[in-house]
Amino acid sequence: MAGKDKLSTDPYKGVRDFYPREMFVQNYIFDTMREVAERYGYLEYSASILEPTELYEAKTGEEIVEEQTYTFMDRGGRSVTLRPEMTPSVARMVAAKRRELSFPLRLYSIPNAFRYERPQRGRLREHWQLNCDIFGVAGIEADVEIILLASQIMQAFGAKERDFEIRVNNRRALGEAFSSLGLSEERAKELRVLIDKKDKIDDFNVRAEAILGKPLDPSIFNWSGFEELQNALSDAGVKNVVHNPELVRGFDYYTGTVFEVFDISPENNRSLFGGGRYDNLLDIFGQESLPAVGFGMGDVTMRDFLETHKLLPEYVPTTDLYICVLQNEHTGAAQTLAEKLREQGLNVAVDYSARKIGEQIKAADKQGIRFVLCLGADEVASKKYKVKNLKTGEETELDESGVGDFIWSQEI
Amino acid sequence: MAGKDKLSTDPYKGVRDFYPREMFVQNYIFDTMREVAERYGYLEYSASILEPTELYEAKTGEEIVEEQTYTFMDRGGRSVTLRPEMTPSVARMVAAKRRELSFPLRLYSIPNAFRYERPQRGRLREHWQLNCDIFGVAGIEADVEIILLASQIMQAFGAKERDFEIRVNNRRALGEAFSSLGLSEERAKELRVLIDKKDKIDDFNVRAEAILGKPLDPSIFNWSGFEELQNALSDAGVKNVVHNPELVRGFDYYTGTVFEVFDISPENNRSLFGGGRYDNLLDIFGQESLPAVGFGMGDVTMRDFLETHKLLPEYVPTTDLYICVLQNEHTGAAQTLAEKLREQGLNVAVDYSARKIGEQIKAADKQGIRFVLCLGADEVASKKYKVKNLKTGEETELDESGVGDFIWSQEI
Repeated sequence: MAGKDKLSTDPYKGVRDFYPREMFVQNYIFDTMREVAERYGYLEYSASILEPTELYEAKTGEEIVEEQTYTFMDRGGRSVTLRPEMTPSVARMVAAKRRELSFPLRLYSIPNAFRYERPQRGRLREHWQLNCDIFGVAGIEADVEIILLASQIMQAFGAKERDFEIRVNNRRALGEAFSSLGLSEERAKELRVLIDKKDKIDDFNVRAEAILGKPLDPSIFNWSGFEELQNALSDAGVKNVVHNPELVRGFDYYTGTVFEVFDISPENNRSLFGGGRYDNLLDIFGQESLPAVGFGMGDVTMRDFLETHKLLPEYVPTTDLYICVLQNEHTGAAQTLAEKLREQGLNVAVDYSARKIGEQIKAADKQGIRFVLCLGADEVASKKYKVKNLKTGEETELDESGVGDFIWSQEI
Repeated sequence: MAGKDKLSTDPYKGVRDFYPREMFVQNYIFDTMREVAERYGYLEYSASILEPTELYEAKTGEEIVEEQTYTFMDRGGRSVTLRPEMTPSVARMVAAKRRELSFPLRLYSIPNAFRYERPQRGRLREHWQLNCDIFGVAGIEADVEIILLASQIMQAFGAKERDFEIRVNNRRALGEAFSSLGLSEERAKELRVLIDKKDKIDDFNVRAEAILGKPLDPSIFNWSGFEELQNALSDAGVKNVVHNPELVRGFDYYTGTVFEVFDISPENNRSLFGGGRYDNLLDIFGQESLPAVGFGMGDVTMRDFLETHKLLPEYVPTTDLYICVLQNEHTGAAQTLAEKLREQGLNVAVDYSARKIGEQIKAADKQGIRFVLCLGADEVASKKYKVKNLKTGEETELDESGVGDFIWSQEI
């Protein structure tokens, strides 16, 4: 192919390539989320990234659907959307098998989601997001459990309660405040969207007054249920909870408690993730309401948080041992030895290049692999193998049968 | 919402919802693939499902690109495609960091991929696919390792060598046969595509003759390199290898060995997956050739295979214990107990419904959870807990500190 026609090696704008080192971080984040979600009895589910567009039209929120979704016609003329968030999909799945499922139903998933936005710190066009949801519990226990779970995941990542703050509010209380102002549903929604953006705009007061016809009195946002929730969370061990009367959360479907986990460090002062109660989302499938509370925790913001707080672990490749081969004629012996060591449970790679041994060792080191074993005529004859720890430089001579145990003992 | 406007709870046509039981099978398949790939030193990577459309235009194959991709314009006017396969993405990633990476480079991923097709057995519009690739090895060792790895994964699933057959062929040998017929590149490609479809069409001979101007002589398809590959595989322990002179594999980018793992059972007589050598794919990025061999193993066909051969494991939920709560007033105590048991490493769910205890136990059983613990005034007072095994009906009285060890001992 001529140089002029050559393709770019860049990924699509706003999405990421994960090479093994990035994948390691991604897997660390996913595994930690997964472990804690399962500890609380949440069961894993999944759905396709591709959904019928209608799914988002009712309750996801206008800005997202009209300006930020990836929506297109398939070859059969159906309008489809790359999911911008997971909640409508899990609601659809629960609605589809409502009679067969047993409640309380706890579900989690770590799906990817797409939004067409200008890529920036903490926001990409594709991100992954842990979603935890509990269905069938109308009482405050579910709100408490979901917030406790969110807090426990933060702590499983090594965060301390002093590193973050859990801001809570209540959509119903907010609705009542709007009613007390005599606002129509439409005006109330306008005001809610405005409050959601308060931190991003300069003329909030002017705009609020334009909607209300008078200045906004902040005292209307009191929420009598806060203390009960705060006490219940405190009993469960969650102490870093505050009432934020201006917390709204973007989605239209919330009906009760909403919350947000906020990084309070000066270097990364921002909302990390959040969620809330959405008791009426199954309405869109023509079904009776089903109580539900959940949250979505994105990988991009979590990775920023972990970096800021120096909580990311050091890279360790999954490969334990790299076999360097002195001459081409020993490749067969190397493959046989590798196979025996794999049977001991080791993850083993073989170098087939027959280049200088130093270069082979360098290749292993570049991949972060900790142990190498060089195989030549001597080793094939003596059946004694020197295993070298590339971190310490130490070499240990071993029989074939001793290699696995030796490496396990060093890795612990 | 009025009944007439209600949304369907069906997923998009040809894709799947994974409820916990289906997710369990999916995770079993992925975990098995992952374990074996890592045992051979393959490192995990990942990329976005969304790629620039050009990536597939050069070498993926006309039928796929023109008739089967999900391709659309993003809101910025860029043509994007949901990847129909992973190889172009991994080639792009390797090309992007060629100087920083060390070779031989072994990579694996389990991405999803989309094709717009009529859904049928073994073929859906979205599937997941283990991709294993080794870069930087021109010699036969790489072909052997990749085929050995494919065979080892089959065996890790419990398949025996007698259950499947590995069919191999060589694209270069095929190219030479076409040259010997004096075919132009275009006619050769036409014939290759025809041979690839041989099993699906009735008038193969007529059509082949139309391309060639004379009947096709099958003896031209001999491949002198087969014995060497067969012997090397046999040395590595892979004995179920046959030469299939009509094996082509769909993608345009193959340059050498191609192979296919074929289910030879009468009930599921079909190709399961395959791969091959593609030494020139990095050309599309204007780079020097880089030797590469790989395969893609799809989850849909593997699940069919495992079902046919009764190799799927029984469902075991990740939740170990379900706490039933006799009266609402004991919910707090249940949450405290649950938290203590989670610290012992157990995965614990709590029922908040306060319905009849029998119904709570039924809910646990329906989810497949093996152990329940019922908490009422007696248990709160005595701090003795009866743990019931729902499979055997056996009840065991334990202190809080003994619950974890007891359940571990029962689960082994």
